[in-house]
Amino acid sequence: MYIGVDLGGTNIAVGLVDIEGNILAKSSRPTLADRPFEEIVKDMAQLCVEVTEAAGHTMDEIKGIGIGSPGAVDHAKGEIIYSNNIPWNHVPLRDEMQKYFDHIPVNIENDANAAAYGEYSVNGKGSKTFVAITLGTGVGGGIVIDDKIYRGFNGIGGELGHFTLVHDGIKCTCGKLGCWECYASVTGLIRQTSEAIQKHPESQMAKIAAEEDHISGRTAFNAAKAGDPAAQEVVDAYIRYVADGIVSIINIFQPDLLVIGGGISKEGDYLLEPIKRFVAENTYCKDIAQSKLAIATLFNDAGIIGAALSAKS
Amino acid sequence: MYIGVDLGGTNIAVGLVDIEGNILAKSSRPTLADRPFEEIVKDMAQLCVEVTEAAGHTMDEIKGIGIGSPGAVDHAKGEIIYSNNIPWNHVPLRDEMQKYFDHIPVNIENDANAAAYGEYSVNGKGSKTFVAITLGTGVGGGIVIDDKIYRGFNGIGGELGHFTLVHDGIKCTCGKLGCWECYASVTGLIRQTSEAIQKHPESQMAKIAAEEDHISGRTAFNAAKAGDPAAQEVVDAYIRYVADGIVSIINIFQPDLLVIGGGISKEGDYLLEPIKRFVAENTYCKDIAQSKLAIATLFNDAGIIGAALSAKS
Repeated sequence: MYIGVDLGGTNIAVGLVDIEGNILAKSSRPTLADRPFEEIVKDMAQLCVEVTEAAGHTMDEIKGIGIGSPGAVDHAKGEIIYSNNIPWNHVPLRDEMQKYFDHIPVNIENDANAAAYGEYSVNGKGSKTFVAITLGTGVGGGIVIDDKIYRGFNGIGGELGHFTLVHDGIKCTCGKLGCWECYASVTGLIRQTSEAIQKHPESQMAKIAAEEDHISGRTAFNAAKAGDPAAQEVVDAYIRYVADGIVSIINIFQPDLLVIGGGISKEGDYLLEPIKRFVAENTYCKDIAQSKLAIATLFNDAGIIGAALSAKS
Repeated sequence: MYIGVDLGGTNIAVGLVDIEGNILAKSSRPTLADRPFEEIVKDMAQLCVEVTEAAGHTMDEIKGIGIGSPGAVDHAKGEIIYSNNIPWNHVPLRDEMQKYFDHIPVNIENDANAAAYGEYSVNGKGSKTFVAITLGTGVGGGIVIDDKIYRGFNGIGGELGHFTLVHDGIKCTCGKLGCWECYASVTGLIRQTSEAIQKHPESQMAKIAAEEDHISGRTAFNAAKAGDPAAQEVVDAYIRYVADGIVSIINIFQPDLLVIGGGISKEGDYLLEPIKRFVAENTYCKDIAQSKLAIATLFNDAGIIGAALSAKS
């Protein structure tokens, strides 16, 4: 039995997870990210005990604790090098957590890697290579090769949101120009929607945004489904950005399975089908077995499950 | 002792290679690529015997034969799915070669994978993750993870030339728009040089091209070194394309070492130093150990050595 901690900028979510990836109990508290990290870790530790006892177990039965954290993670040191969501800089997360549970191995993962490993453990078993991407505020990614999270030599590999899709394009939060994340994230979609609304103030999309008093990742999708041509253009161009990045990843990795998660993935087949068509037309070699594409199914639980099972080895 | 076959559109080069990656003897013949594949394989087989005997050995001492072939390679079947350089379509290369050497295991690799494994075996030992890219007529790539060539689930993974660098950019030979290969290959550089010559017919670069009666991958580099500002612009923009792709690969893989090979790599530090600067400024996380960059050293021998040693396992 393992414990997974999904540390986010807003909430700390903790779950007790069995070896099959079932969540036996879960609980959460607000992160209150501006506190000293020691207080955040104390809450995490309390939640670990809480979920274990809630399921009728004791900490003696726990074989490992995994923490999925935002930011750049030095996996070997168990340290968060830095994070934007939680204002951390060289935080020794593993050592601090280990103070509460000195006999239980603690593993620190990047949150996108943890989510990928969760999806892999439940939906990707048997894949030689598995890729998960998350279309959220940013674009996260995780790669599992031969049952192991791929991390590169320094622990921060697998950043699938930060390859260039548009040479000399928009400046990314990472500092580089034209990252896939700038175009395929919810943030990118909102920017694309906002620009289209300025060009087409008469559109249904503009009306929806005005009624809701803000633009979200759903604005263009909802207006497109209601038949608005300006919104359809936004959605088509957005999906093209997403799909072009996915083809790139497939050409590099040729994974058995690539799953798409994050907020936008709730559009389901409306998102997936045009991506599949673009991918089928554009992958490098069409005359061989092709990577499968699917929508992620675990949503917010992926982080808990993946973090927990990442502590297995 | 192993034999490596580097099959190219122009020549078949074969070498006898020891376990350390030293070439003990080598020989080559023209491919004459339009012949039936059986004749090409017959020449390969004769060359294998020739190099072995030239070094004073017998085929009984050979532990494996590796063939690096252009095109999309079905590694498991030992088949060339298709190739442009040699007009092949579903050619059972391993089975045909095995007819000559039924007791020696034969391994078929993509040529870029073989070259990468050669560089790795000689220059990358101890790397957890090693990446080689080849800036040639196209852009090839190979990835070695935990001492194994990375191939993806269907055998054709590791195509580093075919991720999108310019969304909706130039049409690539692979069919997709805007592949890195279109901008970072010799072919791309020649196109960029040619366009600049049309814009700047008064430039030294234009004069060099007229004198030599053609444009090559060296035209802009040579003119830039001679102080031509128009050529310098071409070189700067070209190196930016190359470096932007390399940053993308580093952000994804975080390799211990990435080596740059192929014709353009002969520019040495003149190419490498500005790439290093761009990479240092643009990688995802600067506050952790960084991937090393180097120029490949084996040139044409990489394919022979890598093909040979790929037959090890």
